[in-house]
Amino acid sequence: MPHPDPQMTVAELNHFFDEAFDTPRGYEVEHVEQDRLRLRQSVASLMLRPGGTVSGPTLMALADAAAYALILAHIGPVALAVTSSLTISFLHKPQPADLVADAEFLKLGRKLAVVDVRLHSEGTTHPVAQAVVTYALPSGTAS
Amino acid sequence: MPHPDPQMTVAELNHFFDEAFDTPRGYEVEHVEQDRLRLRQSVASLMLRPGGTVSGPTLMALADAAAYALILAHIGPVALAVTSSLTISFLHKPQPADLVADAEFLKLGRKLAVVDVRLHSEGTTHPVAQAVVTYALPSGTAS
Amino acid sequence: MPHPDPQMTVAELNHFFDEAFDTPRGYEVEHVEQDRLRLRQSVASLMLRPGGTVSGPTLMALADAAAYALILAHIGPVALAVTSSLTISFLHKPQPADLVADAEFLKLGRKLAVVDVRLHSEGTTHPVAQAVVTYALPSGTAS
Amino acid sequence: MPHPDPQMTVAELNHFFDEAFDTPRGYEVEHVEQDRLRLRQSVASLMLRPGGTVSGPTLMALADAAAYALILAHIGPVALAVTSSLTISFLHKPQPADLVADAEFLKLGRKLAVVDVRLHSEGTTHPVAQAVVTYALPSGTAS
Repeated sequence: MPHPDPQMTVAELNHFFDEAFDTPRGYEVEHVEQDRLRLRQSVASLMLRPGGTVSGPTLMALADAAAYALILAHIGPVALAVTSSLTISFLHKPQPADLVADAEFLKLGRKLAVVDVRLHSEGTTHPVAQAVVTYALPSGTAS
Repeated sequence: MPHPDPQMTVAELNHFFDEAFDTPRGYEVEHVEQDRLRLRQSVASLMLRPGGTVSGPTLMALADAAAYALILAHIGPVALAVTSSLTISFLHKPQPADLVADAEFLKLGRKLAVVDVRLHSEGTTHPVAQAVVTYALPSGTAS
Repeated sequence: MPHPDPQMTVAELNHFFDEAFDTPRGYEVEHVEQDRLRLRQSVASLMLRPGGTVSGPTLMALADAAAYALILAHIGPVALAVTSSLTISFLHKPQPADLVADAEFLKLGRKLAVVDVRLHSEGTTHPVAQAVVTYALPSGTAS
Repeated sequence: MPHPDPQMTVAELNHFFDEAFDTPRGYEVEHVEQDRLRLRQSVASLMLRPGGTVSGPTLMALADAAAYALILAHIGPVALAVTSSLTISFLHKPQPADLVADAEFLKLGRKLAVVDVRLHSEGTTHPVAQAVVTYALPSGTAS
């Protein structure tokens, strides 16, 4: 039951994301390999307020985007995957630094993909948040 | 074990939200009563793209804000409540209309508040999404 | 998008459950109507220890069974629905009394059913636990 | 922010579990180290029916027990930790074999512990289920 290899490169994924969002979000795919992908959000894009807080919705959006990028990388840009559910645990206060999201398949099935996402602030080891994101996959997906 | 009555009015809650966000989000508290609150996000603020889709992160942010407003209404604006976890199920495609979030306490304890949130598009009956949002409450909260 | 009416009666559901479990669990379907079902677990079956505690797994199993019974009631006994995910929040300490589970559809789609379940101890008003249970439905389900 | 080292040995944990449950569940702590613990449930205890299915509630109970054992190992047997929430994704069909649960701290805070649990069937590599379990910790916990 090995999952397929990625079908898109980092450059192709970033090009796709640039086209997909009207407003830049500061997301950049850094790395992709079988079952795993790293997405980075630049500190500049976080628009930190005094105190350096990063909002919960910012973390949720990043987790969702990282899961989406991982799926896209493995089933290709034609697919229309939609988020079915998302569970996030907020663990430690983010630092005023880039956010790094590591996404990994728990499952890539025919109908559903389930992705574990860990969020860190650049330069720290403990996680800021952990999410499980489930996407419903379009019928006819190859995997 | 009756929960306390709300300690803030709709007007006070809306004033608080206006101050809290740098950029307007189109949120308006419409109604508050014991254990329940309704928050509305105007369709204008949704910045719909062709096709009229509303993004998942928009729905997650609204669910989180509705839970926060409900807690604030009941424990007052001095408190520093932070989201501990959020689980959201995406149910039906949102319509190009105002989004309405109905938040209700499942529990308002001393350490944790657990809130059920249902999201609808104005004018439709079936829910767009359902969320359970858990907030950690500051020590010394009265309830 | 009205959901279908129930296709099984309370008696048919209880007969099905009696056959499905090797060991009796003390579950009894009490009521079914469109989109809603009530499942009861008798206090005798809870095997309470001194102190009257009910274990978390007991509550999770009851929530899962109530969601399953609701789905079965609406799509019929031929279907092979399997739990896809379950999220439960434990809210208040159960009492040494019957447990009552109220299950309601958040969504009954072609591929997925999402069910909200509230658990109470008989005779108390505040919920013991709240769960969201997602079932994957077999292909070819009519709804 | 290093978490404390385990305060209980594998033998002490197994002794505690033997005492804690009225009926044997076939759980055995196999390994504990800083932030991680492995709990095994013997295939004999699974009481497999024809077809070899393992029920969802069996998996939920094991995930909860593994998280509890991990917490106990790190804060000691005096503590009264209670499950606050549990989210589980069912990923692949279990095999008729021992179940292995790998629990790891996402966070061990003063008030809350958040634990990631992966369940496998012995001899297979892909996960049967993944859970995130949150426990509320008693006041006065050292960590």
